[in-house]
Amino acid sequence: MSTIIAVETSDVRFPTSRDLDGSDAMNPDPDYSAAYLRVVTDHGDGHEGHGFVFTIGRGNDVETAAIKALTPYLMGRNVENLLADMGATYKEFINDSQLRWLGPEKGVMHMAIGAVVNALWDLKAKRAGLPLWQLLGTMSPEELVNLVDFRYLSDALTPEDALEILRAAEPGRDERMATLLAEGYPGYTTTPGWLGYSDEKLTRLAHEAVAEGFLQIKLKVGADLADDVSRLRTARAAVGPDIKIAVDANQRWDVDQAIEWMSHLAEFDIAWIEEPTSPDDILGHAAIARGVAPIPVATGEHVQNRIVFKQMLQAGALQVLQIDAARVAGVNENVAILLLAAKFGVRVCPHAGGVGLCEAVQHLSMFDFLAVSGKKDDRMIEFVDHLHEHFLTPIDVHDGRYWPPVAPGGGSEMHAASVAEYSFPDGAFWAADAASAVEKDMV
Amino acid sequence: MSTIIAVETSDVRFPTSRDLDGSDAMNPDPDYSAAYLRVVTDHGDGHEGHGFVFTIGRGNDVETAAIKALTPYLMGRNVENLLADMGATYKEFINDSQLRWLGPEKGVMHMAIGAVVNALWDLKAKRAGLPLWQLLGTMSPEELVNLVDFRYLSDALTPEDALEILRAAEPGRDERMATLLAEGYPGYTTTPGWLGYSDEKLTRLAHEAVAEGFLQIKLKVGADLADDVSRLRTARAAVGPDIKIAVDANQRWDVDQAIEWMSHLAEFDIAWIEEPTSPDDILGHAAIARGVAPIPVATGEHVQNRIVFKQMLQAGALQVLQIDAARVAGVNENVAILLLAAKFGVRVCPHAGGVGLCEAVQHLSMFDFLAVSGKKDDRMIEFVDHLHEHFLTPIDVHDGRYWPPVAPGGGSEMHAASVAEYSFPDGAFWAADAASAVEKDMV
Repeated sequence: MSTIIAVETSDVRFPTSRDLDGSDAMNPDPDYSAAYLRVVTDHGDGHEGHGFVFTIGRGNDVETAAIKALTPYLMGRNVENLLADMGATYKEFINDSQLRWLGPEKGVMHMAIGAVVNALWDLKAKRAGLPLWQLLGTMSPEELVNLVDFRYLSDALTPEDALEILRAAEPGRDERMATLLAEGYPGYTTTPGWLGYSDEKLTRLAHEAVAEGFLQIKLKVGADLADDVSRLRTARAAVGPDIKIAVDANQRWDVDQAIEWMSHLAEFDIAWIEEPTSPDDILGHAAIARGVAPIPVATGEHVQNRIVFKQMLQAGALQVLQIDAARVAGVNENVAILLLAAKFGVRVCPHAGGVGLCEAVQHLSMFDFLAVSGKKDDRMIEFVDHLHEHFLTPIDVHDGRYWPPVAPGGGSEMHAASVAEYSFPDGAFWAADAASAVEKDMV
Repeated sequence: MSTIIAVETSDVRFPTSRDLDGSDAMNPDPDYSAAYLRVVTDHGDGHEGHGFVFTIGRGNDVETAAIKALTPYLMGRNVENLLADMGATYKEFINDSQLRWLGPEKGVMHMAIGAVVNALWDLKAKRAGLPLWQLLGTMSPEELVNLVDFRYLSDALTPEDALEILRAAEPGRDERMATLLAEGYPGYTTTPGWLGYSDEKLTRLAHEAVAEGFLQIKLKVGADLADDVSRLRTARAAVGPDIKIAVDANQRWDVDQAIEWMSHLAEFDIAWIEEPTSPDDILGHAAIARGVAPIPVATGEHVQNRIVFKQMLQAGALQVLQIDAARVAGVNENVAILLLAAKFGVRVCPHAGGVGLCEAVQHLSMFDFLAVSGKKDDRMIEFVDHLHEHFLTPIDVHDGRYWPPVAPGGGSEMHAASVAEYSFPDGAFWAADAASAVEKDMV
């Protein structure tokens, strides 16, 4: 028996805005950040659970405060009980009636719950000596169904539906595991496509992407139509006709504007249009999907929970579903979303990038291939070459593919030195930065 | 010229869970709370701006932290500039790209922005020497349109549509102001209907409601069907056939369950079914509305923003739209929602109760009557007899009506003594409570 004896939270921020890395039509100057937590037990095995919420700078303190507010729910708890029934553990958090008022099931508090749930999964996987994708992939259909909260889903997905999907995939699990280890899981890269890069840099990075084996790149669009057309022409010339190019508007448009704008980009053979409008606008996405067909609509990185994904699927609002490891209430809610996607026959291509999102979300796609959809060749995980060096088990991406992690855990653990250096505002980096700013002011 | 020189935040909690006041099917033990802020300027007039987010207990510290995180956006700012263009001021907050990531436009951070926006409106109204409803009611259609962010609305409501609605209502404003002052604005009461009250208490409170002139009461339902039927029978017997009875499930059901459950309550002549399912489930509400017709569906107190309300209206998901003063990004977003309701011809019956929600939301309904819909006889404001004594300008409800407040401001200012006494955990009430708990432990 072991007990949770410490929960440490950290407001970690990286100064990415200084390089224009990560700039898009809605987010001109993000400082990629993580509201981070570390769960420590008194077990002698030394295993800890790590989790985080990704944000882009200001407000990371509020997200960290929300995680900290969950600390009393963890301290002193019996770890074996918490980990033995992760369905019950997850439901305890999302169904707390007082905390629920702050959402319900959305925004700062919901993401904080996700970080806690993911930290517990990280710990569970480490204790099992398995990478998370394998741990999930060894659970029975009944155990997996028990992870899901079907409240508000039953008009689209019942426990019986979920069981049927999981049982249908069960016989092929071993074979698919061998395939996955041999072939990896397809990735695509957003590295060439940020706004603010010159044509030369775009061309160079696009060439590199193709040379590295990626079969799809993605460009940010939505700030200026003429510029988008020009950059797409540059990109298409760089990659040739056989590489897919997706575009991402980061919620920049209203419905009619999205349809009109995309009509000017269609000639470049667009693989999907991502986040054309508000992630809350289910009916808007559905109207856009009808208006831009046959170009598929992709969304999900800001979709708040399983209930909105359910409706997106019901309404035909998306043709590519983009789960995110740190937006919803953790692994459990993402299992529900993967099941919904499988029920509706929609492919899942996760959002990643940011801080640690690639490391975390790959486990969910690989689990999906093993035990849910059974598919990987029509889907791919986003890859952005940022900040992986801060993680203990950084992704292994080469030949355009994600290669299955073998280290135990959920991939979310950062180096303690990185957490310390980039803690805001007192870590070594930010303290030096503030001192240097003061010095400049004095000159 | 004046400047903001202090922004004070307070985590105020009232121990309402001890009386079962406010208990419903989803919220068994709420401690009604306010994440509260006070904006102080260096102007010699002594006017301050007060605003709050209502929560039900745990997590109120996180909400308070979110408001505190907005303090740097306020400190040192020129007050006259902020107040002169409240449209620009509101948009500055909701469009901050880094903060936006925490929603976008939902949950803890969005509500915090609402509290700030409302505090600035409170200050603006005090400076104008007018109650907020009158201040808004004296603004021109063009000025009102300028308050709204039409992003993500233009497929349902354009600035031109809004202008047309407001101009059509303009000629009758003076006449309606006289009517409002003479007749008040209809209210209905939830006081009899909480779960946990005995039949005797329900009957007594229902009789009192009728005697006080209310034409509608509301009962909480959704925990136990047999109990709901029994309580509705008791309530209908108490009020007779001419008083309306609405029911409120507080998000308890899935879609099919809502339709089935309501089929058993229909015989009691139900005025509306409120929050039958998740506030995120637009398509679910639409299915329920079709399934329970002709009983109207009401929702809104947890609807996160104008974008979800837009879709609720587009989908025919609600027949009664329930704005809340402290869920969305303040007065500005509620003006947008009132305009949407007017465009779709749907009546608005605000959610109130909690802490200060009655005090705040009455201004919006009265403004709507004056300048937007021009209607009040098909609508009513919720009334709950809780915690009004803590406000400087408590509501005046008698003869079943809200009587227009005449004091300048938005109604959101609490007595400093109440804020001090109920501040958590260090205010006098909670400190004494903790000391008494320690004493009991020792006995």
